[in-house]
Amino acid sequence: MNEQQRARRPGGRSARVAAQVHQAVTDLIGERGYGNFAVGDVAARAGVADSSIYRRWGGLETLLTEVVLTRLNAQSPMPDTGSLDGDLRTYAAQVAREITGPDGPAVLHLAVALSSSGQQGRQAGADLRAERTRQLQSMLDRARERGEPAPDALDVLDHVLAPMYIRVLFGMVPLTPDYIDGLVDRLL
Amino acid sequence: MNEQQRARRPGGRSARVAAQVHQAVTDLIGERGYGNFAVGDVAARAGVADSSIYRRWGGLETLLTEVVLTRLNAQSPMPDTGSLDGDLRTYAAQVAREITGPDGPAVLHLAVALSSSGQQGRQAGADLRAERTRQLQSMLDRARERGEPAPDALDVLDHVLAPMYIRVLFGMVPLTPDYIDGLVDRLL
Repeated sequence: MNEQQRARRPGGRSARVAAQVHQAVTDLIGERGYGNFAVGDVAARAGVADSSIYRRWGGLETLLTEVVLTRLNAQSPMPDTGSLDGDLRTYAAQVAREITGPDGPAVLHLAVALSSSGQQGRQAGADLRAERTRQLQSMLDRARERGEPAPDALDVLDHVLAPMYIRVLFGMVPLTPDYIDGLVDRLL
Repeated sequence: MNEQQRARRPGGRSARVAAQVHQAVTDLIGERGYGNFAVGDVAARAGVADSSIYRRWGGLETLLTEVVLTRLNAQSPMPDTGSLDGDLRTYAAQVAREITGPDGPAVLHLAVALSSSGQQGRQAGADLRAERTRQLQSMLDRARERGEPAPDALDVLDHVLAPMYIRVLFGMVPLTPDYIDGLVDRLL
């Protein structure tokens, strides 16, 4: 690709820069923990100028918010196996894989940190949870339409997601398949 | 108290400085979030010299660790009401009051942040959880000795503490008495 072609595809370069910057943020959270780095660290790690980050994201908080939203919304689609039991087991195993994966704890810490940061972070956290709850609710609604008794979305949060989140946040890993299935069994 | 008397009671002054510094840390976590302040900010807020903090704690991480350990160990003693049902309800209500109190979310965020910080933080987090688990275990052991069936300590973590922790970390408050009792009912 020559310079002229590159100039015609600003979207391609822009998307690549965004991906590098997002990965730099995720790496820095994993290595140093949330809050222990600045825009300059992200820029250096991503190989871009500080000014590119300020121009595009305004500052660190907006960037962090975007990273969390992008990572969590990129999660696999909600399962549709034909039974609530199958859906919940698949969903719980999927979440467990995500939060114990290479970037999982970092993203989970960031999601928690967002809710304790400023107004914008809190709003981003609330939006993120609303979107996840909506997806979970459609899974539970499908079960009810098939005539299966289904718990509330908040019960799934309290008794399947919360235990897994807290165990990962506290470093009590791995989450074994038996443990995850046990959470679903107890809920159903 | 004159200067001579003060000089004779270094423990009194030392304890007062420690209390001021601890409170400054808790305030800063509440206002700015974990990681968004340095030793100098703590010193300024507590009205002491930076060097006093470095001399006594070495650095920010040790200080943060000590604050979390002190706050969480200062929690009310484990209840002993004569029945597991009563003990668990009292304990859950106590934890809910602590984590939704003025400094509760800050301390909870710090406990989570510790586990993602360096080796020393992870060890402090693990020690803290071991101590809390030991206390909880004695409550459950007392119930078994009375002939009551009792859940495992990890079930209490997963189904009573984790849902409350996650709701506070995500800003889904207040935790109502009905909600808290519902968690205990479901566990028993």
